[in-house]
Amino acid sequence: MRIGILGSGLMGAKLGTIWARAGHEVVFSYARSEQKLKRLAADAKGKARAGTPGEAARDADALLLAVHWSRVDDVLQQAGDVSAKVIVSCSLPMNADDTGLVVAHTSSGAEELAKKVPKARIVSAFNTVPSEVLFGVFEARRKTRRASLVYCGDDASSKKIAAQLIGDVGFDPVDAGPLRIARYTEPFALLVAQLAYEGDGGPELAYRFERFEK
Amino acid sequence: MRIGILGSGLMGAKLGTIWARAGHEVVFSYARSEQKLKRLAADAKGKARAGTPGEAARDADALLLAVHWSRVDDVLQQAGDVSAKVIVSCSLPMNADDTGLVVAHTSSGAEELAKKVPKARIVSAFNTVPSEVLFGVFEARRKTRRASLVYCGDDASSKKIAAQLIGDVGFDPVDAGPLRIARYTEPFALLVAQLAYEGDGGPELAYRFERFEK
Repeated sequence: MRIGILGSGLMGAKLGTIWARAGHEVVFSYARSEQKLKRLAADAKGKARAGTPGEAARDADALLLAVHWSRVDDVLQQAGDVSAKVIVSCSLPMNADDTGLVVAHTSSGAEELAKKVPKARIVSAFNTVPSEVLFGVFEARRKTRRASLVYCGDDASSKKIAAQLIGDVGFDPVDAGPLRIARYTEPFALLVAQLAYEGDGGPELAYRFERFEK
Repeated sequence: MRIGILGSGLMGAKLGTIWARAGHEVVFSYARSEQKLKRLAADAKGKARAGTPGEAARDADALLLAVHWSRVDDVLQQAGDVSAKVIVSCSLPMNADDTGLVVAHTSSGAEELAKKVPKARIVSAFNTVPSEVLFGVFEARRKTRRASLVYCGDDASSKKIAAQLIGDVGFDPVDAGPLRIARYTEPFALLVAQLAYEGDGGPELAYRFERFEK
């Protein structure tokens, strides 16, 4: 496959390198300097070269869009006509200082709940897995590698309690931070629901965070 | 621990049962009938009983809020004063027919991108893991249990290409559906980023979806 990399930063450089090593023809484009692009292409071994966004796009079977959201318009303009192109995008709509999404996501159910009962101590948990998986996770709890379950909240002692309850069900409790992180865990819950109920594998779905060190 | 279940539906019934078996004192409340609550309490073995939301809340060390979003106000009113109570909430802010979140999340970067380049075929992918994990996943690709990577898009042939590219990196490609699912995968990406960069375990973080059947 011919793959054009639009944005050879952290993601683009690594993915392009890996794809080149996997045998694809890769054009790296849109980095701070042409020198960096050339070095990337040389280091990738395989069939990799440096180019402009226009060259990366030309004849590409797939384009990787991997620029900061603020650069999307610019790199697309430089790429030229992308009609009918396959664009694999990993660009998130982040604001300028990378602290949040600029598209939607300005509150969460958990935060709205906390406004309703301001004196209670809310922990958001158990909304990221379907109920169908719970007994399965419980029965597998003696395994060394448990499923994860994210939780978040603003009160440390409440979170300890939540973590114990999560562990009792057979999950590995994963502290995702303050309650506002529910802006992310709640949509994640909908992603899990989509996979559980719209996919083919059945609804007994859980997830596990794991680290892969090089 | 004394645990009050506010909403003994799919989630509440199962979690309450598991916690009772784990040795906690559980009060089931707020189901379609008192009979159902009594049966749940009897089936749970352990120290479980049926009660009203007020009884579930009274003296509870933790409350599980597990009602549909449209019932939150009602169950909270019935529970009475929940000041200083620990509320573990798995209630998502879903609309009445359970098709979407009522709080925020009305678009996504991927959809905005598709508006910018309406003739291109967008696949959203690779935004849900930090770049730091990529080489680690690539090196572990011969393992039987790969990390997952979700992707979504509206064009089937583009998604096949994206799936191949994802597989080449060493991930198990997980089709999350149409492009609008980026409303969920994008916030999920921010959850992963939160865990990778704000947690203690380092940024080489990936995730895997697994099924746990009973």
